[in-house]
Amino acid sequence: MKDQGNDTTAPDGPPRLGELGLSNFAPYLMNRIMGRYNASLRAEMSALGLTTPKMRALATLAVIDGVQIRQLAVYAVVEQSTLSRALDQMANEDMIRREPDPTDSRATRVFLTDTGRAAFESMWPHMAKTYAHMFKGVPDDERRAFVLTLQKMLNNVRIHDF
Amino acid sequence: MKDQGNDTTAPDGPPRLGELGLSNFAPYLMNRIMGRYNASLRAEMSALGLTTPKMRALATLAVIDGVQIRQLAVYAVVEQSTLSRALDQMANEDMIRREPDPTDSRATRVFLTDTGRAAFESMWPHMAKTYAHMFKGVPDDERRAFVLTLQKMLNNVRIHDF
Repeated sequence: MKDQGNDTTAPDGPPRLGELGLSNFAPYLMNRIMGRYNASLRAEMSALGLTTPKMRALATLAVIDGVQIRQLAVYAVVEQSTLSRALDQMANEDMIRREPDPTDSRATRVFLTDTGRAAFESMWPHMAKTYAHMFKGVPDDERRAFVLTLQKMLNNVRIHDF
Repeated sequence: MKDQGNDTTAPDGPPRLGELGLSNFAPYLMNRIMGRYNASLRAEMSALGLTTPKMRALATLAVIDGVQIRQLAVYAVVEQSTLSRALDQMANEDMIRREPDPTDSRATRVFLTDTGRAAFESMWPHMAKTYAHMFKGVPDDERRAFVLTLQKMLNNVRIHDF
């Protein structure tokens, strides 16, 4: 995978991708891993009539219920227009309900209904299994160190305070 | 973020997401980080007329040129139908050329043209900058350990040999 040319180094610039190699480039590895993670949940999601945006909204609400829509968009990593459509469908399916924020008249908060919580509870064993499979053979201390690095990285790249 | 309820543990099952907390759930952190990574490159991609699938194909080909389309789909984490459309456009824009595989008549190999390589070279400084920003404050040995864990994880989840 290494670039064999003579111009692999750029003394005045960043290292070249061919020099790093794809298999050492963290964003590449993370994209591939998350691509597999999402793909491996797709069958279970479809069986429950869920899409990736709906699933992420459910998982977020299962942990922090009653969050504002704009925060939910950030937590769930779904664009706000996509999220709004997903929430419309989820409200029709009685998975969530929306309420005006009592302290901010322009904001709406989203709550999981019992139906929504049941849908998440049906998905969670599959998510937990995929998660466990992902870390197979990775000792606990290595996983903890990995998560600490991820937290630093999120802190570096995030543009919201939450 | 911790679930305050009494039913946070499931003695017979996996840990509950509320118990782990979103900020300790690696797939959540990875989705958020990659969401920001991809978003922060979007402006530069648009300026060059690139989309995420095109960009990923370019980056992959910049490292392993002449790869088969089905392998490119895996490396670039783009579904094969989406990739085929992107490659059609990239061929029209003279960024890539496709050639029959000399050893497998059913397969097609994809090569970067000089125009395609130039497009990637224009993007790479932005990718390298985003990559460096992501790891700000993370010491080299921690980053190396992080990448080693990612490699183990990819090895666990991948379904292809490459």
